[in-house]
Amino acid sequence: MKKSTLFLIALMSSGVTMAQGLGVTPVQKINTPIVEDFKPTPVNQPGSPFPQVNSEGRVRTQILAPEAKKVQLDIGAVKYDMVKDEKGMWTGESAPQDVGFHYYQLNIDGASVPDPGSLFFFGACRWGSGIEIPSNDQDIFAVKDVPHGHVHEVLFPSKSTNTSPKAFIYTPPGYEKETSKRYPVLYLQHGYCENEYSWPNQGRANLIMDNLIAEGKAKPFIVVMTYGMTNEISFGGLRNFDIKPFQTVLVDELIPYVDSHFRTIADQKNRAMAGLSMGSMETKSITTNRPEVFSYIGLFSGATFKPEEVKDKSTVKLIFQSCGSKERPDGVKQSVEELKKAGINAAWYVSEGTAHEFHTWRRSLHQFAQLLFK
Amino acid sequence: MKKSTLFLIALMSSGVTMAQGLGVTPVQKINTPIVEDFKPTPVNQPGSPFPQVNSEGRVRTQILAPEAKKVQLDIGAVKYDMVKDEKGMWTGESAPQDVGFHYYQLNIDGASVPDPGSLFFFGACRWGSGIEIPSNDQDIFAVKDVPHGHVHEVLFPSKSTNTSPKAFIYTPPGYEKETSKRYPVLYLQHGYCENEYSWPNQGRANLIMDNLIAEGKAKPFIVVMTYGMTNEISFGGLRNFDIKPFQTVLVDELIPYVDSHFRTIADQKNRAMAGLSMGSMETKSITTNRPEVFSYIGLFSGATFKPEEVKDKSTVKLIFQSCGSKERPDGVKQSVEELKKAGINAAWYVSEGTAHEFHTWRRSLHQFAQLLFK
Repeated sequence: MKKSTLFLIALMSSGVTMAQGLGVTPVQKINTPIVEDFKPTPVNQPGSPFPQVNSEGRVRTQILAPEAKKVQLDIGAVKYDMVKDEKGMWTGESAPQDVGFHYYQLNIDGASVPDPGSLFFFGACRWGSGIEIPSNDQDIFAVKDVPHGHVHEVLFPSKSTNTSPKAFIYTPPGYEKETSKRYPVLYLQHGYCENEYSWPNQGRANLIMDNLIAEGKAKPFIVVMTYGMTNEISFGGLRNFDIKPFQTVLVDELIPYVDSHFRTIADQKNRAMAGLSMGSMETKSITTNRPEVFSYIGLFSGATFKPEEVKDKSTVKLIFQSCGSKERPDGVKQSVEELKKAGINAAWYVSEGTAHEFHTWRRSLHQFAQLLFK
Repeated sequence: MKKSTLFLIALMSSGVTMAQGLGVTPVQKINTPIVEDFKPTPVNQPGSPFPQVNSEGRVRTQILAPEAKKVQLDIGAVKYDMVKDEKGMWTGESAPQDVGFHYYQLNIDGASVPDPGSLFFFGACRWGSGIEIPSNDQDIFAVKDVPHGHVHEVLFPSKSTNTSPKAFIYTPPGYEKETSKRYPVLYLQHGYCENEYSWPNQGRANLIMDNLIAEGKAKPFIVVMTYGMTNEISFGGLRNFDIKPFQTVLVDELIPYVDSHFRTIADQKNRAMAGLSMGSMETKSITTNRPEVFSYIGLFSGATFKPEEVKDKSTVKLIFQSCGSKERPDGVKQSVEELKKAGINAAWYVSEGTAHEFHTWRRSLHQFAQLLFK
């Protein structure tokens, strides 16, 4: 992969849009009619009436700032002016947003701060506000009355970094009771400027798996989510990204830990790796460098494989490539068709109406999981 | 317990100090000399240089707010004015704080917002900024190169509330490998306006247990932490707090779930309950109402037992009562001495130099855990 492409993906995955990255300041639309059916969202702080979202996908929020001169809602790389009432309460709305999950913040007299009304998520290199725009398929990650797996927070020993990195490990429903059963494992990576919390929090990975398993659409398997920026690259430094430090942590430290602490089927046929954006690049590199470790490969919104890059077709069970319809779906589809022509089992998925954001990746996991270990 | 006492404890446990609760506005000290040895803290956002703490326990933070007229650091119920430089960067310091963990926020032209430089913790009824003031015993919850237990995030079925509440369940190191071993269980409750995240996050319960077990000071046991405000009382509503809804969730729904999904020793002798502040009141009520369920009782910074309130001495293995030296240690000690005179095994602990805050409760857990199931 070219370094320029890599940097571009890094920019996009950090929550910075193309326009922002290129120094273009989008202009706020004015006088747009607003549908007055706003409701609080599932990612509000407990009891907080704001932020709210309406049926158009607009975000409205409020903050009391009696002495402030200017307050803005900053979402999707656009800053929307909010309006003050006589009590010092500021209210403002965004333009309609794509369905799914978006990071946002407030700007109060020049200070960029989280909206205290929202829950906080790690993305764009920091914990900050997030908002959920309802989608017609949000049911895939709803908390339902079905058996729920557990998400284990573990600290595993890492000699190469001399630290105890954190990982979140999903075990499927029944794992505790069926104590003679062993399970395949998916290693699932976040994007640039995200971390190990991103997939279980805004990605809803555990709930997607619970629901798929309850519907009989996915085989029960373990999902392992850890921090992928081992060399702690700073923004822009991704140009010089070296896969080795993370590859060592993942393959030589985390996998042995998981195989010794969980009831895994510890072979190549029962091991998958997938990632979003930067995580897809890591997945491509690591599955290429260590073909004896993984057999299923998922690349969400980022890297794609060319047939000649697949060293040994016989060891690859599946290459799954996806992106949002607002990314570059033609490139993803074409790449998959070429892989198929070369005799490699490959599949593509395009998330309708979404861009380089978490709803694309939730849907990608939802699709990919149904193809695994079958 | 009298309703007035109950309301006072609710106030204190919500992060509101006595002075604030009673409408007294503390005055900021000026012209205090400041020791210039500030360092970033372990609870900063990744890569964030601020907030910082110095050897006196002062908190210093910074925020860029070029257009703001007034920015304050709001900690310990005092608002400290920050000072703007020519680039619009505001900097300010607090007076020295007690060792341990404190919630805080910024005030920008009248808006109370989290400090974007800190990690966020649930307390005072919302996710907001927290700061860690170094203590000479912070080693008790340090991440060390010792075997680490797992913290399982589970969703358990609750018919009484028709929801799937969350619980965090700590399993000690070795739990996965020693598959024939069964473990005692401690049910550990947060305070008013905290939630199930408070003990594992700012309470560091899992790390305290990891370290005690590695030193051979505590028997390995399971710790279960869930949300204790089942009836979703609003602030002030604690006057009418009814223990029944939470008692049903804990005793009739969560305990059976834990006993069927984890390798517990499912009897009264091997079950403990403890809680901080409002959680201590819940612990007192539930262990009194259901004496057949728990044998070890821990009350941190809140309720105390009178001998005549212990229905059947023979079923109580230990009553542990604690608080900070800046709370009401004499009352706690006297109550324990009375219990002892009545032939009940009781112990007190006073956390030196701390008030109604999480360092008191970390230390209390550290002490209590060493007495359990022996």
